[in-house]
Amino acid sequence: MSMEEIVSLCKRRGFIFQSSEIYGGMQGVYDYGPLGVELKNHLKNAWWKTVVYERDDVEGIDSSILTHQMTLNHSGHEDTFTDPMVDCKDCKKRFRADHLVDGKCENCGSTNLTEPRPFNLMFKTNVGPIADGKHFAYLRPETAQGIFTNFKNVLSSTSRKLPFGIAQIGKAFRNEVTPKNFLFRVREFEQLELEFFVQPGTDEKWHEEWIQMRYQWWLEQGLSKKNLRLQPQTGDELAHYAKATIDILYRFPHGFEELEGVANRSDFDLGSHSKNQEQLNLAAKVDPNNDSNAKLSYENPQTKEEIVPYVIEPSAGLDRGVMAILVEAFEKETLENGSTRIVLHLKPHLAPFKAAVVPLAKNNDQIVTKAREIKSRLQKLGLGRIRYEDTGNVGKAYRRHDEIGTPLCITVDFDTFEGEEETVTLRDRDTMKQERIRLSKLEETVRRYYAD
Amino acid sequence: MSMEEIVSLCKRRGFIFQSSEIYGGMQGVYDYGPLGVELKNHLKNAWWKTVVYERDDVEGIDSSILTHQMTLNHSGHEDTFTDPMVDCKDCKKRFRADHLVDGKCENCGSTNLTEPRPFNLMFKTNVGPIADGKHFAYLRPETAQGIFTNFKNVLSSTSRKLPFGIAQIGKAFRNEVTPKNFLFRVREFEQLELEFFVQPGTDEKWHEEWIQMRYQWWLEQGLSKKNLRLQPQTGDELAHYAKATIDILYRFPHGFEELEGVANRSDFDLGSHSKNQEQLNLAAKVDPNNDSNAKLSYENPQTKEEIVPYVIEPSAGLDRGVMAILVEAFEKETLENGSTRIVLHLKPHLAPFKAAVVPLAKNNDQIVTKAREIKSRLQKLGLGRIRYEDTGNVGKAYRRHDEIGTPLCITVDFDTFEGEEETVTLRDRDTMKQERIRLSKLEETVRRYYAD
Repeated sequence: MSMEEIVSLCKRRGFIFQSSEIYGGMQGVYDYGPLGVELKNHLKNAWWKTVVYERDDVEGIDSSILTHQMTLNHSGHEDTFTDPMVDCKDCKKRFRADHLVDGKCENCGSTNLTEPRPFNLMFKTNVGPIADGKHFAYLRPETAQGIFTNFKNVLSSTSRKLPFGIAQIGKAFRNEVTPKNFLFRVREFEQLELEFFVQPGTDEKWHEEWIQMRYQWWLEQGLSKKNLRLQPQTGDELAHYAKATIDILYRFPHGFEELEGVANRSDFDLGSHSKNQEQLNLAAKVDPNNDSNAKLSYENPQTKEEIVPYVIEPSAGLDRGVMAILVEAFEKETLENGSTRIVLHLKPHLAPFKAAVVPLAKNNDQIVTKAREIKSRLQKLGLGRIRYEDTGNVGKAYRRHDEIGTPLCITVDFDTFEGEEETVTLRDRDTMKQERIRLSKLEETVRRYYAD
Repeated sequence: MSMEEIVSLCKRRGFIFQSSEIYGGMQGVYDYGPLGVELKNHLKNAWWKTVVYERDDVEGIDSSILTHQMTLNHSGHEDTFTDPMVDCKDCKKRFRADHLVDGKCENCGSTNLTEPRPFNLMFKTNVGPIADGKHFAYLRPETAQGIFTNFKNVLSSTSRKLPFGIAQIGKAFRNEVTPKNFLFRVREFEQLELEFFVQPGTDEKWHEEWIQMRYQWWLEQGLSKKNLRLQPQTGDELAHYAKATIDILYRFPHGFEELEGVANRSDFDLGSHSKNQEQLNLAAKVDPNNDSNAKLSYENPQTKEEIVPYVIEPSAGLDRGVMAILVEAFEKETLENGSTRIVLHLKPHLAPFKAAVVPLAKNNDQIVTKAREIKSRLQKLGLGRIRYEDTGNVGKAYRRHDEIGTPLCITVDFDTFEGEEETVTLRDRDTMKQERIRLSKLEETVRRYYAD
């Protein structure tokens, strides 16, 4: 699937739109349409289910986007979350130093450039009625910091013991100089982040375990092994405090790029946000902190020893995940009769519509009433959105739902009322096979599609 | 329930924390803890299910928070989304003009004040590498505008016919001068917004219908009639373009205040964002728009007549909803033996934990294994989070779960393995009754609790 094909399908069928399009659009900012919001929500729910619900050692939170300056000062973002920028003195354009082509301006080709200067990628906004430049907050550049600053709150309200994790899904913002590659590099995005706190010394084992669990999870979302790659960060890529980071890469249309990173961040984060750091025997090199009112430490309930847990951080890009899943699912299939169809082979749990109910004739009361009844019965299964599809003929409805990944179409026709028992046609997206089933078996049959 | 009780419970049990607390906190910004995030997500899901899934005439979207200046210019927010502020020339404090006490400064009592000046409540942030004050976006002050600007995108990707709606859940931001009353007036909050587009002339009927449907929905979330009130906006309160707005008020600890507004906004919004307005025969008075590249109109498929739909807008505050539900559910109950318990009578579909599985002895392998097996079986029902609760004795576990609203505790003890069939104790939060059931009936029994 090319980048053009994915962008075009997304717009045409209502997955993703350019934001503020009627006013010319905003670069690097996207809106999710009726299908996109369902796919995205299902992917969030799949993550939350795996990471929070199915474990007994992870709590969830949802912290604010507006973030205290001190949080992002002591996290290191104020100083180091920067890209090096150069200005062209001739055409006045500003761009990333690593985008220089042979030392020339990418716009006008001039070599009359400033030295690279750090440009901070955080969005800033004034808070309160006084705009004196002193009262401001940042839009968080990652959800992780809201987890660290709530470490004590979660610990004391849940009585957790090590190891345990805190998970969060939410928006984050980066003032990217050059947004590009559709949902890949954007200014507003969503993250799936887990901070898993462990006893120092057990961190390497947990790091390895989380890499495997996260890789496995992406396979369960439908990505294939041939399109995934595990790659350790090395040298310059690796943050100074990280013991090790493994990136999970996906084969996007523009190449293998990061989908998720799994980092062993040592005791850097909790240590950085703590007061009285000298009492904490930290392994990581942290800057002094005279602003925090808390020690983000943990008392071993047996030994009463105070330690600062190490952190294993699996951090995934939700929008990148949506994009990877669309790329993987897309197929332009040539059928036996030589015609082609577009089909999205989405895993059923991710499909925007769980099923479409298609009345063969929209002006026949008996058929319409039965189709509506079936829609409502299926909706009650709690699987997600069921589409009542009466906008075209049956063949067109099938093709439309192939293209948006609906696993099942259920057709009500005149034969429905002919036999001893009412029946409907079940039509499978992937095999295109049609099967006649008794209506009394409907829930049971549909549920089987969505089991696990 | 007093405001102090709710704030204290929320912090102690992990519903809601002050944001950036370790750095002194941020006024009017809150984080949801492990229980709060579940309650909030369940309330979102309940709304989405009612408004999107169970209807056949509503689509969902999820648009960006960063919003184009032109969107909020033509929506009217740049000019009119303001509070009147005065400055005290003596103590230099700035405050809302409507907080003046007898024409005196609320801080120092001086009458040496400036005239009231409009203060815009939108947060603004620079976008892109050039900080010249010209390249900026707003944080959306409401989710509604992202619906209006996507009207054509949704229409063309879904082939909708009138009447139909577009629903959205998401964060919005207002730079409130005086955040107060816990989650009630905050700077970062979440909205549940529906824009329901109708043929002009049918708007009053639909307005009435949505008022009733929304009122009914709040009852289904557990709010009681005695604490809800419908109140029409009058005179100054009513926006100039609104034909009518009904507020749904809730009896918060600080008084009856707005939980949701249901407005008949006429053709103001789609008209304001349209080019060539003179061709559209608008009923609302709109400002000229030379920036939009679209006409947000609708062609009647039969008559081919071009019209601009009227909009009915039910717009609710999610955080206010969470607060109302906590207030309503809270009870300090005096028991027969004279002792008291705190219990949250949350509707089961909103409870953060759907059930707690309590092993009587944490060091007995048979009991622990069985309890874990039950936790995993219940988790598979897909109802939400099941808590494996081994942090105290059984009595304490029951009290803890009363206080956080867990509808059911399931206890595994030595008797579990005594009879011919394995059994467990089911303990009901509200009645405190205990019932012995066969383990083979577990799923069936628990499901009954959650079948609305």
